[in-house]
Amino acid sequence: MTPLKNDLLLRALRGEPVPRPPVWMMRQAGRYLPQFRALRERYDFFTRVETPELAAEITLQPIDLMGVDAAIIFSDILVIPQALGITVTMDEGKGPRLSPVIRTPDDLAHLAMPDVADRLSYVYQALRLTQSGLAGRVPLIGFAGAPWTLLAYMVEGQGSKDYARAKAFLYQYPEAAHRLLTTITDLTVAYLNHQLRAGADLVQVFDSWAGLLSPADFATYSLPYLARLVAEVEGPVILFARGAWHSLPELAATGASALGVGSELTPAFARRQTEGSTTLQGNLDPALLYAPIPTIVRETRAMVEAFGAQRYIANLGHGILPDVPVDHARAFIETVQSYG
Amino acid sequence: MTPLKNDLLLRALRGEPVPRPPVWMMRQAGRYLPQFRALRERYDFFTRVETPELAAEITLQPIDLMGVDAAIIFSDILVIPQALGITVTMDEGKGPRLSPVIRTPDDLAHLAMPDVADRLSYVYQALRLTQSGLAGRVPLIGFAGAPWTLLAYMVEGQGSKDYARAKAFLYQYPEAAHRLLTTITDLTVAYLNHQLRAGADLVQVFDSWAGLLSPADFATYSLPYLARLVAEVEGPVILFARGAWHSLPELAATGASALGVGSELTPAFARRQTEGSTTLQGNLDPALLYAPIPTIVRETRAMVEAFGAQRYIANLGHGILPDVPVDHARAFIETVQSYG
Repeated sequence: MTPLKNDLLLRALRGEPVPRPPVWMMRQAGRYLPQFRALRERYDFFTRVETPELAAEITLQPIDLMGVDAAIIFSDILVIPQALGITVTMDEGKGPRLSPVIRTPDDLAHLAMPDVADRLSYVYQALRLTQSGLAGRVPLIGFAGAPWTLLAYMVEGQGSKDYARAKAFLYQYPEAAHRLLTTITDLTVAYLNHQLRAGADLVQVFDSWAGLLSPADFATYSLPYLARLVAEVEGPVILFARGAWHSLPELAATGASALGVGSELTPAFARRQTEGSTTLQGNLDPALLYAPIPTIVRETRAMVEAFGAQRYIANLGHGILPDVPVDHARAFIETVQSYG
Repeated sequence: MTPLKNDLLLRALRGEPVPRPPVWMMRQAGRYLPQFRALRERYDFFTRVETPELAAEITLQPIDLMGVDAAIIFSDILVIPQALGITVTMDEGKGPRLSPVIRTPDDLAHLAMPDVADRLSYVYQALRLTQSGLAGRVPLIGFAGAPWTLLAYMVEGQGSKDYARAKAFLYQYPEAAHRLLTTITDLTVAYLNHQLRAGADLVQVFDSWAGLLSPADFATYSLPYLARLVAEVEGPVILFARGAWHSLPELAATGASALGVGSELTPAFARRQTEGSTTLQGNLDPALLYAPIPTIVRETRAMVEAFGAQRYIANLGHGILPDVPVDHARAFIETVQSYG
C-alpha cells in the first residue's frame, strides 16, 4: 500500500497531535456536485452502488473537486438487508422501499443467511479501485448501517417520521427483535472486516434512527450491538448514533475511535459528556451551508474553536443537502483547512 | 363559572401538593377513538375546526370516553397562518399544505394583519361550548403554535424532514425572519388571551420543530419569542419545545408554569436540568402504547416514579398514534390515576 500523504484523520482517531483538524462531509459524494448529477442521470441508484468502477469514480469526485481530507466509499446501508434476501428499490428523491417487510417473528424465517464475502464483493472491489485512484492522497472510510437502523427499515419498509411500527415490533416481540439485531450484527462485523481488508482505513457505523428511541430503548436495542461492532471490527470505528446525545458517555465507553455528533448539541456539551477523552466528529448544521459565505466562515470557525483542534474531525451534523452551492461547501472545508 | 371538580392539573401547574399526578394525552381527541373517526368521515378537517359545535363535541369525547384529567380544545396551530391570509388545505393522512409560501422578505408584504378577536372567533365559541359541556369536570386547555414552528410551515409550505428551507430563510434573511417571528408572536399573544377569556383555564404552546434548530439557533430564533408569550399571556402556560432538551434551564427561566418534555430524555435528566423547580409534563413514548398492556403498566409506573408525583403532569412524549387500541390508551391513563 502507498503510504498516506494526508493522514490527519487517522492521527485524530488515534488522539495524536495534528496541526489542524481533518475535515470531510457526510454525503460529500452527492447531488450538490454537478459531476455527481451527471452520473446520476445515466445510471440508476443501485447500478451506481453495484458497479465498482462507478462507485469508485463517485467516491473520488469530492477528493478531486473539494479537497476533503478523507474519502468515504459510495454505497448504501441497505446492502445488508439486500444480502438478507430483501428487495430494495430506490425511488430517487422519495427514498427506499423494502419488500417483503418484517412484521412478525415468523417473517424472520424467510431471511437468507448470506456469505457477505461473496454477496457484497462489489463493495470490496469498489474499495480496491478507490484506493488505487486515491494513490495515498487521503484515508478511505468504509461504512455500514447500525443494527437498530437496519431493523427499523426492515420493519417499516420505507422511511418514516417516527418509526412507530419498528418500535412496536421491539415492544411486541422483544425476543425476535434481539434475534434479528444479532443476525444483522453478525453480518455487519463480517462485512466491515471485509471492507477493512479490501482497503478501507477505517469504518463508520451510521445509527441514523438512534434518536427515535428513548434513552432506555436505545440502551436495550441499539447500544449493545454498537458495542459488539466496535469490539469485533478489526480497525478504527467512528460511531454516529444520530440523536443519541443522551448516551454519549456509554457510546464513549464502547472504545470507539470517534463519536459522531449531530447539530442538536453544542460542542461544549459533547466534550463534557465524553470528558475530553474521545475524538469527536461533527457538527455544523447542514442548512447553514445555505447561509451567505461570511456566515459559513464565522460559524465554522466558532465550531472548531468550541470543539478544539485536537481529537476532533470537522464535519456536518448530518449529510450535505442536495442543492447547496458548491462554493458554500468549499467555504466550509477551506475554513477548517486554514485553521491555526 | 362552575367550580372545578377535578383541579389536579391546575394544582400541579401551581406547584401545589396533589394526591396523584393529573394525566392527559396530546392528540387525545384523535383517530384512535372510533367516535372521532365517525365524525371525521362526515366532516373534513377544517369544517371540524371551524364549526364550534363539532370542535366542542370532539374535545369532549376523550373526557367522556377515557376519563382524562384535562380537555384540550380541538383546533390546529395553522389557524394563525390562515389569519395572516395564507390558504391552508389539509390532505388527511398527508399533512397540511400552505399557499402562498414565504420565500423572500418581499413575501411578507402580502400578509394580512388580522384582528384575531374577530378572525378566530370560532375558536373562542368552541371553548365556550366546551366549558358548558364540561360543567366543571376538568380544566380546559387552549393552545397555539410557537412562532418558529409557524414560520417553518409558512416557509416550507408543508411538513418537511429537516426544515432546511425554513432554516435557510433564517440564515439568509435574519432581519425579515425576526420581523415575521415578531408578527406571529403579537398575534399569538392576543389569540391566547382571547382563548383564556373565552374559557380556557390554561394554554399550551407547541414548538413542534424546536428540535430541528441547533441550540444556538433555538436561542436566537425561538426562545425569545417563547419568553414573550409566557410574559404577555394572562394565564398559565405550558411550553412544549419538542426536542429542545438542551435549553431546559432557559425554558424554565421564562417562568412558564410547566415544560413539556419529549421521549428523547429521561425524567432524571429533565429534573436535573430544571433543578426540580418547574412542573414537567411528559413523556411516555407514544409507540409504547402498541406494547402489551402489562408493559404499558410497568413503563408508565416507572415514568411516574422517575418524575415523582409532585410538580408533574403525566402525558405522552408526543401525540397519541392513530391506530393505538383504545384499551391500551386506557391502561396508560388508569395506571397514572391509580398511582399512590
